[in-house]
Amino acid sequence: DEIFSSLQTRRAQKIWSVLRFPLFLTGQRYISQAAAKIDVDFDYDGPLMKTEVPGPRSRELMKQLNGIQNAEAVHFFCNYEESRGNYLVDVDGNRMLDLYSQISSIPIGRRLLYQSFFTFINRPALGILPPENFAERLKESLLSVAPKGLPQVITMSCGSCSNENAFKAIFMWYRNKERGHNNVTKEELESCMINQPPGCPDYAMLSFMGGFHGRTLGCLATTHSKAVHKLDIPSLDWPIAPFPRLKYPLEDFVKENQQEEARCLEEVEDLIVKYRKKKKIVAGIIIEPIQSEGGDNHASDDFFRKLRDIARKHGCAFLVDEVQTGGGCTGKFWAHEHWGLDDPADVVTFSKKMMTGGFFHKEEFRPNAPYRIFNTWLGDPSKNLMLAEVIKVIKREDLLNNATHAGKALLTGLLDLQARYPHLISRVRGRGTFCSFDTPNDATRNKLITIARNKGVVLGGCGDRSIRFRPTLIFKDHHAHLFLNIFSDILANFK
Amino acid sequence: DEIFSSLQTRRAQKIWSVLRFPLFLTGQRYISQAAAKIDVDFDYDGPLMKTEVPGPRSRELMKQLNGIQNAEAVHFFCNYEESRGNYLVDVDGNRMLDLYSQISSIPIGRRLLYQSFFTFINRPALGILPPENFAERLKESLLSVAPKGLPQVITMSCGSCSNENAFKAIFMWYRNKERGHNNVTKEELESCMINQPPGCPDYAMLSFMGGFHGRTLGCLATTHSKAVHKLDIPSLDWPIAPFPRLKYPLEDFVKENQQEEARCLEEVEDLIVKYRKKKKIVAGIIIEPIQSEGGDNHASDDFFRKLRDIARKHGCAFLVDEVQTGGGCTGKFWAHEHWGLDDPADVVTFSKKMMTGGFFHKEEFRPNAPYRIFNTWLGDPSKNLMLAEVIKVIKREDLLNNATHAGKALLTGLLDLQARYPHLISRVRGRGTFCSFDTPNDATRNKLITIARNKGVVLGGCGDRSIRFRPTLIFKDHHAHLFLNIFSDILANFK
Repeated sequence: DEIFSSLQTRRAQKIWSVLRFPLFLTGQRYISQAAAKIDVDFDYDGPLMKTEVPGPRSRELMKQLNGIQNAEAVHFFCNYEESRGNYLVDVDGNRMLDLYSQISSIPIGRRLLYQSFFTFINRPALGILPPENFAERLKESLLSVAPKGLPQVITMSCGSCSNENAFKAIFMWYRNKERGHNNVTKEELESCMINQPPGCPDYAMLSFMGGFHGRTLGCLATTHSKAVHKLDIPSLDWPIAPFPRLKYPLEDFVKENQQEEARCLEEVEDLIVKYRKKKKIVAGIIIEPIQSEGGDNHASDDFFRKLRDIARKHGCAFLVDEVQTGGGCTGKFWAHEHWGLDDPADVVTFSKKMMTGGFFHKEEFRPNAPYRIFNTWLGDPSKNLMLAEVIKVIKREDLLNNATHAGKALLTGLLDLQARYPHLISRVRGRGTFCSFDTPNDATRNKLITIARNKGVVLGGCGDRSIRFRPTLIFKDHHAHLFLNIFSDILANFK
Repeated sequence: DEIFSSLQTRRAQKIWSVLRFPLFLTGQRYISQAAAKIDVDFDYDGPLMKTEVPGPRSRELMKQLNGIQNAEAVHFFCNYEESRGNYLVDVDGNRMLDLYSQISSIPIGRRLLYQSFFTFINRPALGILPPENFAERLKESLLSVAPKGLPQVITMSCGSCSNENAFKAIFMWYRNKERGHNNVTKEELESCMINQPPGCPDYAMLSFMGGFHGRTLGCLATTHSKAVHKLDIPSLDWPIAPFPRLKYPLEDFVKENQQEEARCLEEVEDLIVKYRKKKKIVAGIIIEPIQSEGGDNHASDDFFRKLRDIARKHGCAFLVDEVQTGGGCTGKFWAHEHWGLDDPADVVTFSKKMMTGGFFHKEEFRPNAPYRIFNTWLGDPSKNLMLAEVIKVIKREDLLNNATHAGKALLTGLLDLQARYPHLISRVRGRGTFCSFDTPNDATRNKLITIARNKGVVLGGCGDRSIRFRPTLIFKDHHAHLFLNIFSDILANFK
């Protein structure tokens, strides 16, 4: 791959060349003399302006980025490789004395220590001073795998921040629907400053029992997987619907499972109506394609299609949390792509395998002003760069089909073990390599995980008695067979 | 610096050597054959166990880390340099087939792409599978600058997550005080799963008008700086106290300012009592040493000492948010160290200049169980590494005294400009280089920032009419004079 190699080489040279900087700059010689004498290796001797700021190149890049997300908070685009010490150089070649340092987020000057590692370590404030390649990087990484119908993306640092900000985008969208073409009132602007309606409306996100969406206060109000996550933390009165509890093997319980899913969907509609009656508006519904922390609970594609219809019917946003299911392990890049929705989800959140957090969304969920969905970092460019390379490999090596194939080998083997050890293994289930099974109880589950680990296999638990598989995308059939042989021995000797 | 240089060199060789991996591994040759034939360059041929897991070395490291934070969620410590493909190698040399991949957070196997850049890019799940040097890295970075009396530290990815998790630690601490030696009840465990008391108690954080503590739902309930941050987002009924509005120059308004601070402190106590009457318990008080987003609002050291006493008197935790003020720009590493508290703050949060988010806290705020304060990443080891080097430079180059010195030059010059242009500049204030002044109005402020930028100086606004200075720690006297000359011309010609 010519391009890739040369990219690698350039990057290698970059890192190599700048690795010398710390050696210079952390020694006595340079910095200690800096106050007396300017050393251009680490500082410039003054501003040097070529255009007004933002200049033509910055304005051109703003247009590009604004096509992907609301970029109105961007001051200008930066050339971090040319920036030094107290001086910030923009993409139009303007050199400015920086007395703001990204809202006070740079400790000891640019290009001295971490700044000198560029995109590997360099951490621009992406919301206000992005590097020249930011939009391009988003296109070759996140947007190249965007779920159909969700052309907008916003990056965040972790899964919790991704869901928190997705909630905010949904609340803003809902309020704007209510407002219609009316302007924001003085009363709204004043009341929001003291946490009161109408400025802070009494909106809610509907979530499902057993779901996990993160640990910050907003996310935690939609998380209902384990008490240890929630105990002692104040929460919000937001509606919680039951998630289907399917009977396995599925083919033996078709009717029962259909009834169970219908019961849960009915409860969702009842809750939306009930909460609206008490003036608490359900602005959105959040759900995982497979409840992971909660015990690898699956529902049918039909259940999710009907849930999406209910959301539309009641004017609620439909938010799919793919923080754990996204990235290809189910055999499609996004687990919800298995559902075959006519109308896409409104918002899809991600993190973990994507290395950066964030969310995709429809145009209509785009913030209508800068600084409404924002933080200083908005993720980390080094993670976007790595993601771009990861995605190249996933495509080149056809790792999604590999997940389907290796997952089939794993699931088939687990079903065989279930047939041989029904007293230890039940409810074998999975999609791609995203597989799991139940054990009789918590104690047996934890004992099996410990024995497996001491025999050289790392497994994870979830829910109160399940074991979950979360291998990477290079997990192959032979790894599945290797595991099945080891685990078969463990089960045979289990007391 | 011999040690430092060799460290640099080793790191250089590391990066250089591993940069070759992507060239191999992203080419057809290796991965495509991997399913058929194992290539030890990117995968091992099976588990290889030397000890039980966790082994002696892991257990020893757990003890170390447990001295700094609750480390009971740690499964074992990893040797990420020896880990390959589907195999995770621990610090005792055990090689395990990894079917969990850090709760599904590794896309295409270890040591392939980003994993191969070690601490620069490598992103272990620090809460469950930290690298061998994690505790050591925390000691040489964060703990080497820990505020007096706060020996425990937890890392997070951003400022909002830092405050959210600090709130949670405070709520847990408060609830444990209420419980005394009683156990958690069944009712608590059940009610918390549906967001209801007693499991989710009706606790609150008291914050100040004009404060900014982040943008996630919990943080946002304590943020009161600008409507754009809060409009349309549901919030919590938590008490909001007035922050002193000091008159400048301080020496001319000693009595008025004392009265103003006394008024605010009285309001804090009234709010705590008033909210307890309505069964909403103020578990903690959060405050910035200098309100930054809100307009660089200062209060006297005496005000903060008295506030700390009020917190103790009412049994509330005292949380100091140093996300923007921390890192040395005020002339001390932490701005609250200027106050001279007898009893330290209970919790101190940080991010921005520290490159990693997180919080320091007293022993008594330590979570009493694993997974209560937790997320998959818990920050990023590459940021801890960079922070360690930044701190070395701050100490070696005496950059805290530099901030005091350069800040004096800047403040003196601003006072001179204020005397010459009182119609444009007022309320000049600052500590170290953390300086600011007011302009007549929003429009004038923004116009001054734009003109300055086009003359090559990047300034930031805050509040409704203030301009704030946030240079890095290598900002020297001559940079102050350079700015003052440019800005003096701007003011002279301002129409």
